[in-house]
Amino acid sequence: MKKDSSENNTKPDFIVRERAFFSHVPNTLLKELQTLLDHKRYSEIIKLIEPLYAADVADIIESFPSTEREELVTALKSNLDPEILTHLEEYIRAQVVEWLGVQYLAKVLMKVDSDDALAIIEVLAPKHQRNLLNVIPKQVRDSFEQVLSFPEDSAGRLMQQEVVVVPPFWTAAQIQESIRKNKDLPSRFVDIFVINPKNQLIGCIPVDALVKADPLEKASDLINEQQQTIPVLADKKEVAHFFHHYSLVSAPVLDEKNTLLGVITADDILEVLEEETEKEILHIAGVSDSDVFTPLLKTFYLRIGWLMVGFLNVLLSVFVLSQFIESFKEMAALAVLLPVVGTMGGNAGTQITTVTVRALGVGSLKKFNSGRALGKELMVGVLNSFLFGILLIVLAISYANSLTLGLILASSMTFTMLWAAFAGVMLPLLIERLRFDPAIASGPLITASIDVVGYVLFLGMATLILL
Amino acid sequence: MKKDSSENNTKPDFIVRERAFFSHVPNTLLKELQTLLDHKRYSEIIKLIEPLYAADVADIIESFPSTEREELVTALKSNLDPEILTHLEEYIRAQVVEWLGVQYLAKVLMKVDSDDALAIIEVLAPKHQRNLLNVIPKQVRDSFEQVLSFPEDSAGRLMQQEVVVVPPFWTAAQIQESIRKNKDLPSRFVDIFVINPKNQLIGCIPVDALVKADPLEKASDLINEQQQTIPVLADKKEVAHFFHHYSLVSAPVLDEKNTLLGVITADDILEVLEEETEKEILHIAGVSDSDVFTPLLKTFYLRIGWLMVGFLNVLLSVFVLSQFIESFKEMAALAVLLPVVGTMGGNAGTQITTVTVRALGVGSLKKFNSGRALGKELMVGVLNSFLFGILLIVLAISYANSLTLGLILASSMTFTMLWAAFAGVMLPLLIERLRFDPAIASGPLITASIDVVGYVLFLGMATLILL
Repeated sequence: MKKDSSENNTKPDFIVRERAFFSHVPNTLLKELQTLLDHKRYSEIIKLIEPLYAADVADIIESFPSTEREELVTALKSNLDPEILTHLEEYIRAQVVEWLGVQYLAKVLMKVDSDDALAIIEVLAPKHQRNLLNVIPKQVRDSFEQVLSFPEDSAGRLMQQEVVVVPPFWTAAQIQESIRKNKDLPSRFVDIFVINPKNQLIGCIPVDALVKADPLEKASDLINEQQQTIPVLADKKEVAHFFHHYSLVSAPVLDEKNTLLGVITADDILEVLEEETEKEILHIAGVSDSDVFTPLLKTFYLRIGWLMVGFLNVLLSVFVLSQFIESFKEMAALAVLLPVVGTMGGNAGTQITTVTVRALGVGSLKKFNSGRALGKELMVGVLNSFLFGILLIVLAISYANSLTLGLILASSMTFTMLWAAFAGVMLPLLIERLRFDPAIASGPLITASIDVVGYVLFLGMATLILL
Repeated sequence: MKKDSSENNTKPDFIVRERAFFSHVPNTLLKELQTLLDHKRYSEIIKLIEPLYAADVADIIESFPSTEREELVTALKSNLDPEILTHLEEYIRAQVVEWLGVQYLAKVLMKVDSDDALAIIEVLAPKHQRNLLNVIPKQVRDSFEQVLSFPEDSAGRLMQQEVVVVPPFWTAAQIQESIRKNKDLPSRFVDIFVINPKNQLIGCIPVDALVKADPLEKASDLINEQQQTIPVLADKKEVAHFFHHYSLVSAPVLDEKNTLLGVITADDILEVLEEETEKEILHIAGVSDSDVFTPLLKTFYLRIGWLMVGFLNVLLSVFVLSQFIESFKEMAALAVLLPVVGTMGGNAGTQITTVTVRALGVGSLKKFNSGRALGKELMVGVLNSFLFGILLIVLAISYANSLTLGLILASSMTFTMLWAAFAGVMLPLLIERLRFDPAIASGPLITASIDVVGYVLFLGMATLILL
């Protein structure tokens, strides 16, 4: 790319902040802060933290245990960028917001966009929430109260209320003129909304379309007709799927009368997707919403449910096994081989269930094509059983010198794996049909059924044939 | 909101397409298409599909099995919006692209943005890729070849090459004038990039900042100094974390000399996050990248690795158990109670490992605070052991009338759960230290170690004390 040399005279420096590409705060910085905190050298802490991005400061605050966290937040208080609060995990945000106090928050709330303000208000205890709403101007309070009236996981809670709106008969030049004069614009916007006098949405103009437009073109002619819209009561998980499915950059939020209420942008959705991923992964392992630093008793409480389900499964297994106690007495080798059938069936079952539950979640598995999925899983089960069955027979012959034992092991494993394929596909479908969440309910049911099927088949066959 | 009545005269209809809010194609439509396909009524199929969004048509194509999929794509060929291709799963996109043929693709490639074109090129077999690159104009070919030279999972493969660039001394009015005249703009853009004559980035101007600006303001004064940048070789998973961490709407991609190469927007990141979630969840269950409709043999191949690891674990368990065969002979009840220790320890271990691996992944767990996490998990383990230990003792007394057996069960379970807490926190940290992926390696190692620890403790104590 060649340009004439006169341009070189004005060549400025690289204005964008130069920094390493990382999204984690380095250990060394955390240790340095720890030392400064230990010596109560707060002014040096402020100096260290000041040049950092809000998201990084939030990370630092999260990294310290509660008591030191409070000390740090108090030290930073007068220099605390309110954006930092929006980057904090919810339960830590709730702590920090209590420490900062209502007076401080009231000042801060007026400076940030409505979605960020909401992130602060909604973590407050109800009593403090009322106190805070009482000290802010009525107009702002009303708009917060409207948003707080939407269900917690709805699009209404996710949207930013500040939008740029224009009537359909304005020209591109008029729109731009009015934007230039307006001092009360959202800090960032990617769409301009065309509305009628009743505040109903007529259409959306992407900002770049406005820049490209001829100054005399009318707003109504600049509208992007492919634009999708979001109902205000839609669940935020659904909204995230919707954004992903249609690769949206932004979408307006409407009530049932098409009244424009706000806008959601793709960066808000990143947060939702991350949260949903977290939840989904933790659910598979039977851990409710929590992390490594959730307080002790809360962690205990959140984990106990799943362990109790596991305990009941174990009791069921113990009951089934106790029916075969005479067989164990006669042939102790059965006890030694017991894990083979349950574990192999269980692992195959976990694989199949996970794939099925994911496919239901992203919508690629439907009643329409469930037969095909089941057929495939049964065939994979047959192939796996064939492979591992041969290994088991070889082992049984070389170790116990018993072809019969090998055949019993291999055939009970085969039936268990086929049961795993059948249950792994059909049970999540059935659970969804009954309107429960297959991601939560499938795992324990399938594990329990596989253990029972495996034990009964293996010990039953061994008892009938060998004893 | 009151406006004067003259505005009401121009009140147009709601221009945005009215449609239900869903991101899945309804079953009924799929069944209708199936019937039409069976009767080869292709013109009706085209009529049904024409008004749909590209993402929905992609879903429909994915829903059919391979042979019917080919029939459908062939029927749609001349009416196929190229955007549909970019919404298809990778292995289905590869199929469809082969069916469409090089001549057709060459035409299509010139009409779409560079990142969409890349999505089509990169799934082609190498031979077809060369054929395709040979029939498109040299300039376009060169830019594709540059992008294809970046590693597969890098930012360079994710970015869109089409960007709007301006020199720093242009005024807002000049920038807008040049954008209006330029017919070769990206289909959508949210940033304007200020560069020097060497194409090095000086800074970014959000489009809304341009709209807000005074016409005489200089480009260099409109730059957003908070803007973050992405190195072209950064891993796309890292880029996704970076976008999420800093809540970015878009970011420019630079090489090591700060040369501007392209731009990534948050909607591209939604796709990456979704893919990563998929991978992470499937990994936990030991399923490599696949879904319910991955072909049979490929599914078999992708699942076998994990089952083999499970098989080796089982063999280890069988070996450990075989050391206690005399104990089983003397006391068959041990075989019946065997699942208790392994299952309870295993479930607790899965919970702890999942939380640890997630925390390592999102960066909230570091060496700095690992001691705190370990301490908490050990305490939770003690609390859980206390609760379930009492239950086990009560059961052992009421069922087997043996306090000793209950104490042996409870204490071996306690030690196994503490081992699960220790291994669940420390093993993923160690695995990461050794530069392996803790998400993949942790699970099998921890499961195997918990089983062995549990069996040895329970059977060892029972043998020493009871027999």
